[in-house]
Amino acid sequence: MKYQQDPTFKEPRFSGISTFMRLPHVKTTEDVDVAVVGVPFDTGQTFRTGARLGPQAIRNFSSLVRCSSNHHKINIFDYISAVDYGDIPVVPGFIQETYENMVDVLAPMYQKGIVPIVMGGDHSITLGELRAAAKTYGPVSLLHFDAHTDTVDSYFGQRYTHGTPFRRAVEEGLIDPASSIQIGMRGSMNSVNEYDDSRELGFEVITTDELLEMGIPALISAIKNRVKGHNVFLSFDVDFIDPAFAPGTGTPEVGGIYPREAFQILRQLTDIPFLGFDVVEVLPAYDHADITSALAANIMFEMMCLAALNKKAAVLDI
Amino acid sequence: MKYQQDPTFKEPRFSGISTFMRLPHVKTTEDVDVAVVGVPFDTGQTFRTGARLGPQAIRNFSSLVRCSSNHHKINIFDYISAVDYGDIPVVPGFIQETYENMVDVLAPMYQKGIVPIVMGGDHSITLGELRAAAKTYGPVSLLHFDAHTDTVDSYFGQRYTHGTPFRRAVEEGLIDPASSIQIGMRGSMNSVNEYDDSRELGFEVITTDELLEMGIPALISAIKNRVKGHNVFLSFDVDFIDPAFAPGTGTPEVGGIYPREAFQILRQLTDIPFLGFDVVEVLPAYDHADITSALAANIMFEMMCLAALNKKAAVLDI
Amino acid sequence: MKYQQDPTFKEPRFSGISTFMRLPHVKTTEDVDVAVVGVPFDTGQTFRTGARLGPQAIRNFSSLVRCSSNHHKINIFDYISAVDYGDIPVVPGFIQETYENMVDVLAPMYQKGIVPIVMGGDHSITLGELRAAAKTYGPVSLLHFDAHTDTVDSYFGQRYTHGTPFRRAVEEGLIDPASSIQIGMRGSMNSVNEYDDSRELGFEVITTDELLEMGIPALISAIKNRVKGHNVFLSFDVDFIDPAFAPGTGTPEVGGIYPREAFQILRQLTDIPFLGFDVVEVLPAYDHADITSALAANIMFEMMCLAALNKKAAVLDI
Amino acid sequence: MKYQQDPTFKEPRFSGISTFMRLPHVKTTEDVDVAVVGVPFDTGQTFRTGARLGPQAIRNFSSLVRCSSNHHKINIFDYISAVDYGDIPVVPGFIQETYENMVDVLAPMYQKGIVPIVMGGDHSITLGELRAAAKTYGPVSLLHFDAHTDTVDSYFGQRYTHGTPFRRAVEEGLIDPASSIQIGMRGSMNSVNEYDDSRELGFEVITTDELLEMGIPALISAIKNRVKGHNVFLSFDVDFIDPAFAPGTGTPEVGGIYPREAFQILRQLTDIPFLGFDVVEVLPAYDHADITSALAANIMFEMMCLAALNKKAAVLDI
Amino acid sequence: MKYQQDPTFKEPRFSGISTFMRLPHVKTTEDVDVAVVGVPFDTGQTFRTGARLGPQAIRNFSSLVRCSSNHHKINIFDYISAVDYGDIPVVPGFIQETYENMVDVLAPMYQKGIVPIVMGGDHSITLGELRAAAKTYGPVSLLHFDAHTDTVDSYFGQRYTHGTPFRRAVEEGLIDPASSIQIGMRGSMNSVNEYDDSRELGFEVITTDELLEMGIPALISAIKNRVKGHNVFLSFDVDFIDPAFAPGTGTPEVGGIYPREAFQILRQLTDIPFLGFDVVEVLPAYDHADITSALAANIMFEMMCLAALNKKAAVLDI
Amino acid sequence: MKYQQDPTFKEPRFSGISTFMRLPHVKTTEDVDVAVVGVPFDTGQTFRTGARLGPQAIRNFSSLVRCSSNHHKINIFDYISAVDYGDIPVVPGFIQETYENMVDVLAPMYQKGIVPIVMGGDHSITLGELRAAAKTYGPVSLLHFDAHTDTVDSYFGQRYTHGTPFRRAVEEGLIDPASSIQIGMRGSMNSVNEYDDSRELGFEVITTDELLEMGIPALISAIKNRVKGHNVFLSFDVDFIDPAFAPGTGTPEVGGIYPREAFQILRQLTDIPFLGFDVVEVLPAYDHADITSALAANIMFEMMCLAALNKKAAVLDI
Repeated sequence: MKYQQDPTFKEPRFSGISTFMRLPHVKTTEDVDVAVVGVPFDTGQTFRTGARLGPQAIRNFSSLVRCSSNHHKINIFDYISAVDYGDIPVVPGFIQETYENMVDVLAPMYQKGIVPIVMGGDHSITLGELRAAAKTYGPVSLLHFDAHTDTVDSYFGQRYTHGTPFRRAVEEGLIDPASSIQIGMRGSMNSVNEYDDSRELGFEVITTDELLEMGIPALISAIKNRVKGHNVFLSFDVDFIDPAFAPGTGTPEVGGIYPREAFQILRQLTDIPFLGFDVVEVLPAYDHADITSALAANIMFEMMCLAALNKKAAVLDI
Repeated sequence: MKYQQDPTFKEPRFSGISTFMRLPHVKTTEDVDVAVVGVPFDTGQTFRTGARLGPQAIRNFSSLVRCSSNHHKINIFDYISAVDYGDIPVVPGFIQETYENMVDVLAPMYQKGIVPIVMGGDHSITLGELRAAAKTYGPVSLLHFDAHTDTVDSYFGQRYTHGTPFRRAVEEGLIDPASSIQIGMRGSMNSVNEYDDSRELGFEVITTDELLEMGIPALISAIKNRVKGHNVFLSFDVDFIDPAFAPGTGTPEVGGIYPREAFQILRQLTDIPFLGFDVVEVLPAYDHADITSALAANIMFEMMCLAALNKKAAVLDI
Repeated sequence: MKYQQDPTFKEPRFSGISTFMRLPHVKTTEDVDVAVVGVPFDTGQTFRTGARLGPQAIRNFSSLVRCSSNHHKINIFDYISAVDYGDIPVVPGFIQETYENMVDVLAPMYQKGIVPIVMGGDHSITLGELRAAAKTYGPVSLLHFDAHTDTVDSYFGQRYTHGTPFRRAVEEGLIDPASSIQIGMRGSMNSVNEYDDSRELGFEVITTDELLEMGIPALISAIKNRVKGHNVFLSFDVDFIDPAFAPGTGTPEVGGIYPREAFQILRQLTDIPFLGFDVVEVLPAYDHADITSALAANIMFEMMCLAALNKKAAVLDI
Repeated sequence: MKYQQDPTFKEPRFSGISTFMRLPHVKTTEDVDVAVVGVPFDTGQTFRTGARLGPQAIRNFSSLVRCSSNHHKINIFDYISAVDYGDIPVVPGFIQETYENMVDVLAPMYQKGIVPIVMGGDHSITLGELRAAAKTYGPVSLLHFDAHTDTVDSYFGQRYTHGTPFRRAVEEGLIDPASSIQIGMRGSMNSVNEYDDSRELGFEVITTDELLEMGIPALISAIKNRVKGHNVFLSFDVDFIDPAFAPGTGTPEVGGIYPREAFQILRQLTDIPFLGFDVVEVLPAYDHADITSALAANIMFEMMCLAALNKKAAVLDI
Repeated sequence: MKYQQDPTFKEPRFSGISTFMRLPHVKTTEDVDVAVVGVPFDTGQTFRTGARLGPQAIRNFSSLVRCSSNHHKINIFDYISAVDYGDIPVVPGFIQETYENMVDVLAPMYQKGIVPIVMGGDHSITLGELRAAAKTYGPVSLLHFDAHTDTVDSYFGQRYTHGTPFRRAVEEGLIDPASSIQIGMRGSMNSVNEYDDSRELGFEVITTDELLEMGIPALISAIKNRVKGHNVFLSFDVDFIDPAFAPGTGTPEVGGIYPREAFQILRQLTDIPFLGFDVVEVLPAYDHADITSALAANIMFEMMCLAALNKKAAVLDI
Repeated sequence: MKYQQDPTFKEPRFSGISTFMRLPHVKTTEDVDVAVVGVPFDTGQTFRTGARLGPQAIRNFSSLVRCSSNHHKINIFDYISAVDYGDIPVVPGFIQETYENMVDVLAPMYQKGIVPIVMGGDHSITLGELRAAAKTYGPVSLLHFDAHTDTVDSYFGQRYTHGTPFRRAVEEGLIDPASSIQIGMRGSMNSVNEYDDSRELGFEVITTDELLEMGIPALISAIKNRVKGHNVFLSFDVDFIDPAFAPGTGTPEVGGIYPREAFQILRQLTDIPFLGFDVVEVLPAYDHADITSALAANIMFEMMCLAALNKKAAVLDI
């Protein structure tokens, strides 16, 4: 593929300018299948701040991520050309201006069929991604892993925060809730019917407790049934994962899913037409030994595998 | 309820003077069902010290803990009035004087039927709590989660440390060992029959290995059978939990229970007349990203739920 | 005095609910001379974020700060009644709404002659303080310690950030630049005439290099000459101090002033009618061993001493 | 036994010169069954460096490890005499010279039937151990727990690194791959057939995914079948364990085995004639709260138990 | 000399069992001039705890300390035989029992003219040292570097803490205050006359401010005048040093002396008959990059130089 | 200038792929005056390892470094075109191979008159730089800031480590010691005449103590006298600076120079024909709040200023 990891191994992995997975840093939409894009924005955080440094930290660790998956038995670069596009210019403290810049960069990517994998940044940024995606795809299916529904109406009278993007997205017609699903909710709640608020918006909601009870195979079926026939956007908040494995995040909730389980889930999400992905809420100032960044980088690798498998299938289809 | 979280959401959660769960800080025993009380004492620690800062750290993080439980489907403040009473005056370096101060504060609470949830501090403080409780309840049943039995006779010739409180409590007639149970013991031991020492005192002992083999439903049965018909004191040492999830503690033992399992256990401890609770051995200097404090705060929330459910049942009974 | 540290020493310093210097937490403007007020806002930060947790961290450490100054030979509570008022409700991500809330709380304090000592939060909050102060005092003199002038016009097209408050304050007529002075500027600059921009606004600017060359006595003279006859607002950004002593901050610049020097300066700022103070840009996630919080707490103590000395002089004048 | 933990408990565990498990530090091969030996070498690390401080960190924490196992119901010192031999003189930056020093120290131990438990240092040191062992035992069976096969041919043209020792060992005839097994491989790979390279060398390879699917009882059978009738060397890289439990390591891979599982495995490795053990890749600069050191120290205790059980069986056989 | 650093450099400095300066660990009083002794006790700490791990941390870093001083132009081992004696058995939580153990170990050393350099532990331990010293030397002169006078009468009704040892020492006749001096006091105080309390006991007190004003040459004169003709005990609390240089301590006070200044002072304390030394209040849990331990280790090296110079002079005198 | 910081400020400083000072990452020697080059090599470290991550950490923080100097009153990009060239391929564990790669990259730069500013990596890399420089310049003058002379003959029998480069450089004829100077030596020494060894090689040596006594103006004279008329290579080991300001380094020595002093020195090194620079021994795993990286980045900015001033003078000369 045109853009991929340098296979010559001339330099150690820790060497050189940090790009995601040591991909070429090219600001292009030509000859690109997957574009890794950072959105270093954290104005939407309502508890701890600092997710703006997420992309930097993920890039730094991701040099250890290699090209091949043992599970899928593929070298992703046999099927996709991938770049680290760099970051979208954000406006710290100003969310609407940031959304506009996001649409400017991402809309043309979606238009060209490029699959962006966005690194946050806090979860408010997903609204910007969905606004961009909707220009090409119309309302999309949301596959959402998170400890929180992020469908609150407002915080302190404000409607644009990291706790509100999916209510806004429904209101703006960017998401089709009837084919969308939220997975992993847990923790104490502001009211007993907090998850029902999301269900009333039209989402299917599977809490962490429900997921653990039903098991992963049943979850995979539920997801595939729900999104069947739709273009799907996968949004992954690292607080879906237990804080022992992902301490570097803004609103940790104890008792979460483990990475081994998450990888099992992600690896079975084959045959779903993903139009885009994001991984959000990595907050390096609270990380240690880069374990949260390592987790995020590997989740993004799994997303790349899904994109590569889709590409592989598309090629075979032809 | 009279005392509860401010439901108006005027301030962000991280804002304001830190009290447990943003409860009112009131030094009263009137109109109170549950009183959160700190005991910032660590003179009893035999390995690492620093648990005196546990209450401060737990309070800081606990602002993220909200009022409602999805599992129990209750807003706890529908049933209980709860305050952060502040800390009991401790005397660093002097354990008996500290116990006296504890009895002065706690005995009147127990007398009034208030359920204290005490934040340690090291595990030696539980002896002070039990002395206070016994004045009202006589010998109580102990439900004890911990990596260690804490029934050693003495350390270095000294009988009052965080490794000895439950032997003392039996000797002082504060605990009824025949209806008490210790759960979670693990790690290397000073002698092969270390757990048998506890059994000889009359306790039932279930090690971590035994717990994992029998499973949680069987454990719940064992607990309920054991304490049936007694007033129960629940003491939770955070080293019951694996050090990856609870690094900030004094005497960590690898290979412990995970928070998901612990919450499963705690949530099933319904219909038990708990007279008091404590969470001990949070040592912030060894914590990171507040994950141990977050864990402790959420354990305390589960205790509050149990107290609320008992209150709810009591109301229905009338 | 009515409100002060509890002199009975019943509890160790690390015990109890954390308030600034263990002052009573009272939301009152009656019988108060000095009110410590937190503004946990960090949306204005343009590099690292996280200053919203500054007030919590400062309160936690400040329990070690005691009532008497050896330099001034006073117990401050012989002259001032002081409270920890708590935090002003901020709106994370929304700066104008936050300013409004600040004015609501602070304007009545200034009106009553209370001297607020505000803990940030990032430096953008000072604009809110000045808006409140101006309602009582009109344009005030600014005495400003900082590594940066914070008189930039805008960042990324935005006019309200932690780099712009003093230009806004001049434009809004809240500051009289002709009697104001900025001290401690250093570090690489976006243009050679960055400090001249501030001078053109009317400020006197003394860089760190200039301060070190002229010496502290000359600095004190310069300050007193500059602000003579005016009501003075003292704003202290902890990045005025070298990062080795104040690592926990948002925009550190190497080569700064040392705390010993800063205390020498602050202690000589007697006989200046300070109407208010703030200490900003403490970012706990980057602090270690609480040394930045300790520094901030002690700077605030020096501010309290200045307020107490002014009160003492006022009493003697009568 | 001649050399063991001081059973008199005159000092607290954290007191005194740090040796492994508070064993006597004696540089002898007389009257010794098990010798703990440090090899503070990290020149072989290809990603993060710093494992040279592993032995120091493990010793520091290991004072908490006690003499008796609840699982095996033995006090290990009833069967083995054990010392902390100290460290082998390494030559930082020079691997062959280091190997020579290792052989000088270890070969006489193996010759006398002492079972060394070596603390790394990075995984390149195992080649030195195997060279020493082969002088007495000839080619040995390798039982290898790791996230990586460490059978790469070379890195950057260099054949001696922490990624290559087992290919070298096969080439040098130190290992019998037909009776050797590698367990725990996972993570992204440089090529799809990375594990097949190891299989082609003759090793059995069980990935983390395969282990999780087959379960621990089947794994134990597989191991025992594979090594049956051979002298076995057990090499344990802490990156076999998930980074949440072992953050302090050089090349972490997310999604690993948990300590509870690892202990279950280790405890069932009875009736295998282990000639030596090592635990490698503890990197303290990336650890927190010593959890990785604690893990390593407890793994070493389990190895001691295995050595003690073998000794016990040997005594009974006579 | 009989006991000294191994001059053959066979192992790297970071290798081997950690003893102070890589000295032989020998529990002897024969052929020893200087004995490094740890007292890992922290029950006396009234703010942060954890100084019990001070000796371990200092030993770990001290491997980098070498044998020769450029300032004094001596290899200390040309004049003194020095050992790491290990730690005195302490009784955590029980101060009087600990003092007794200290006297048991230290009194024979003083009796033999050995100069102990004790590593704390908290400052309460100095009382134990002085009790031991007085058996040989009677009341001694105290040369005391500290941010606090540690002459408080009691804390919370308790007379034995790290804030009270020197008042006790005067009361017990262990110190001759008329030839003793306390240097470095600073920080906010509980009352305006806090330092006068110490002066009333008979001590000379030089605050940090006074020291900075008088300069180091004048300080050296003041010290030498004060202690002239007496046997002198030098006690060094690391909080004498500014927290930026010594963050790992229990009761930090901002604005302290810098290490460069401290070394200047220590190096000029020649020709004073020091009978013993200690360095206290190193608290590793709050240190970073070992800078406080490094500082303590180097202060102890300067003490060794003073002991060596005294030995050299004594030899020349003969 | 062709290559410089983007002056349009479209993105916040923390945004985008991390290059040094946000310079373009271009692997070219055309139209370049100054090339920032990383050498992520740490095999030469004899105490702590980890400096291989120095370039990454410096790049991350350096986004805050801006283009203009207040001291020199220049925007450096008015005079120099500068790039971040990326890293030289190193071979971890193999020093000679690494030197060869360094010469391959750097020799052509020196040949073209480009001034490289190299980021280490440990100090062993300077030998590679000098080998490259000598091809163009012959023996050069060394201006060396460091706590250590790095002129030891060998460590553990090995001649190529971070303690030996300057002895090797003299032996290889790369340095003219008669016009070279080493500044800042301090700390305990292996022998009393350690610095004399360096002087015997021909170097002028000024210890930290001597520097502090002579003062900075005299130092500047000494430097300028020493190097007059020669091409000069400036090598800056961050351990020249006190560990409180530069904790993230491999072999810290307490009592060093402060950054304010170092900047004063560096800024006066005008009118010296510097052919190259390096900053070495930044070890991020021991840094906190990036203060060591911030220091290194600002030192490199000062080096850029010197290069720019030389360029400016050269232009004026024409």
